[in-house]
Amino acid sequence: MWEELARELTQPTDSKIILLVMDGLGGLPVNGKTELETASRPNLDETARRGVCGLTDPVYPGITPGSGPAHLALFGYDPLRYQLGRGILEAMGTGVEVGRDDVVARGNFATLSDGIVVDRRAGRISTEENQRLCEFINRELREISGIKVSLYPGKEHRFVLKLSGPGLSDALTDADPQKEGKPPVPAKPLCQEAEFTSEVINKFLEELTKLLASQPKANFALLRGFSKFPSNLPAMGDLYKIKPAAIASYPMYRGLTRLLGMEVLEVGPETEDIFNVLEKNYERFNFFYLHYKKTDSAGEDGRFEDKVKAIEEIDRFIPRLWQLKPDVLVITSDHSTPSVLKSHSWHPNPFVLVSDRAPADEVTRFTEKDCARGSLGRFPSLQAMPLMLACALKLKKFGA
Amino acid sequence: MWEELARELTQPTDSKIILLVMDGLGGLPVNGKTELETASRPNLDETARRGVCGLTDPVYPGITPGSGPAHLALFGYDPLRYQLGRGILEAMGTGVEVGRDDVVARGNFATLSDGIVVDRRAGRISTEENQRLCEFINRELREISGIKVSLYPGKEHRFVLKLSGPGLSDALTDADPQKEGKPPVPAKPLCQEAEFTSEVINKFLEELTKLLASQPKANFALLRGFSKFPSNLPAMGDLYKIKPAAIASYPMYRGLTRLLGMEVLEVGPETEDIFNVLEKNYERFNFFYLHYKKTDSAGEDGRFEDKVKAIEEIDRFIPRLWQLKPDVLVITSDHSTPSVLKSHSWHPNPFVLVSDRAPADEVTRFTEKDCARGSLGRFPSLQAMPLMLACALKLKKFGA
Repeated sequence: MWEELARELTQPTDSKIILLVMDGLGGLPVNGKTELETASRPNLDETARRGVCGLTDPVYPGITPGSGPAHLALFGYDPLRYQLGRGILEAMGTGVEVGRDDVVARGNFATLSDGIVVDRRAGRISTEENQRLCEFINRELREISGIKVSLYPGKEHRFVLKLSGPGLSDALTDADPQKEGKPPVPAKPLCQEAEFTSEVINKFLEELTKLLASQPKANFALLRGFSKFPSNLPAMGDLYKIKPAAIASYPMYRGLTRLLGMEVLEVGPETEDIFNVLEKNYERFNFFYLHYKKTDSAGEDGRFEDKVKAIEEIDRFIPRLWQLKPDVLVITSDHSTPSVLKSHSWHPNPFVLVSDRAPADEVTRFTEKDCARGSLGRFPSLQAMPLMLACALKLKKFGA
Repeated sequence: MWEELARELTQPTDSKIILLVMDGLGGLPVNGKTELETASRPNLDETARRGVCGLTDPVYPGITPGSGPAHLALFGYDPLRYQLGRGILEAMGTGVEVGRDDVVARGNFATLSDGIVVDRRAGRISTEENQRLCEFINRELREISGIKVSLYPGKEHRFVLKLSGPGLSDALTDADPQKEGKPPVPAKPLCQEAEFTSEVINKFLEELTKLLASQPKANFALLRGFSKFPSNLPAMGDLYKIKPAAIASYPMYRGLTRLLGMEVLEVGPETEDIFNVLEKNYERFNFFYLHYKKTDSAGEDGRFEDKVKAIEEIDRFIPRLWQLKPDVLVITSDHSTPSVLKSHSWHPNPFVLVSDRAPADEVTRFTEKDCARGSLGRFPSLQAMPLMLACALKLKKFGA
């Protein structure tokens, strides 16, 4: 529904929006305080004082989202409508650029013995060995029936397969028996349209088996999660009539924002780099997505203290956002990653929006609990984009 | 949408969930205080202190729900998607067990004179007279065309008709002229599939008229609300991969939870019985629904003081829930029943959830007003189940 409203009501303006996503920010208490409550965060608190706060649910209350759906929601794309295939997500995570017509899949090197898959992970070969094999195959096996075939090594036995060329479909079953002790299965087409692609894939597996025949462990491959770019995913610039830029160093977020048609800027790994790139490019765009990964990484590893430090680290740079005087500044998260759970969680995200057109509420501390008492209340992440665009006067009146 | 997510994301675990429903709990003030605000409720308040609070809307803001839809929502079933027929609800309220293929209807004994319905309630015959008539008919009229026919007496002139056998449909018009002074009308099939059932019903009415010919008042019957168990209603255990038990003494709630595939435990009428049965069966299940009726009964009758006492009575048992240390404890209500309205109402329900994975908010009193300031905010009852399952770690991540 929002998407239809966006198409009808957005208008181009020069006003600027900055969205800073502190990945996995929300947490759970240890000794009575969450990571955010524990951190010294004078500038985040000052932002809360200037702005209006709330809590967001990324997908649905109680649902723990992956980074893909959580980000899609924040960008105003219904994560239940646009589900990204496993192959696409793996490709994004591996830093593989995926074109609108490509088909990608997750691959495992495996061990085949007497026609039986005896090890689905080829004894977890080393990442270096994997790289060597992928290079070898890419060199020997450039194309099949006019379709370009490329392997991208991941960690240990994992790789991404990308097929590029006309007429490809992702309506295929996995070429993976799922269990060891069974013979390989081919990729079967789920509709007529996918017959050609299944032929290409099965031919590829055949050729690859010949090439790897002399390998002691990695003499076969399993492929699953065939997927294409979701064909109905509109580009963000078109949908909202904005010029969006992404400042993110991790492959996953670079891949996702590229899928959404954002311009993905080069940025170094240091926290300061994010702000340098923003300032340098501030005149060229009018929507900026800034991604900060350290909070999530620490949370995923269960490093409570490091997550606290990651919050304190970025807090020091927040005044540089104020100094740009954007029409709208939002600081929030895609999902929570409590250190005690060592994983993403379903807990709602602290959210603050600063704009001359959004009167401040009484919240003066940027914590989970304080945001719960903010004027924005609790709302779906999907409603963040309409709010940002509205405060930037990029939305016309609905009806008369 | 939640249902699709549940199918995809739930996983079996040993973690335990207790859901205590204090029926009709929410109220309206008398002398400035609601029933809940008036009651001494130290243990409910302590629960609020330990947990996270909010307010729930059972069906839609402003909509007063019946017990059926209000409970369905709490169990995570969209009450607008699953509408229970009047016959099913009447059967549940009368304590009739309804199988998945049975058709049930609400019945009235009535008075027929010269082929005209002159009294739709047969002069409100006594409940005892009703029981005698039902027994008599059940004895004389066991089956029609291979379909088992059973009457279950209710109060005064009301009964439930149950048809059991293969090939039955509920797509039928009421066998009821709706007004006095009109001739009886037959049950007409609304589709071809229901022709056989309509023949059975009309034959039943014919036979019943012969059997009751000598009765002074109750010499006929009207039938309405033909309904079957909703065929698409998934069993709760399958949907959430839990082992659910219901501890409820009232027929309506026992019937509803049986429809949902919960194991319905035997429980006495005393408040203490609920807790005894819970403790005795705590190892056998991992989801417990506890139903407390006294709050609603007092509200329905307009007995403000008795509703206050009902709250105080159950409050004393709350520590026994804490002592079981469930992974998730929720105390809430299906709907509000303010004594001043003497009926169900649309007011949202106080809600508290206690779990190690749900950090406490600042609410320290379990009242309507305090819960409105809780971190969970105001949310549809339908979102309670996702939250409970999430906090019990029974939900996997959505997307990657």
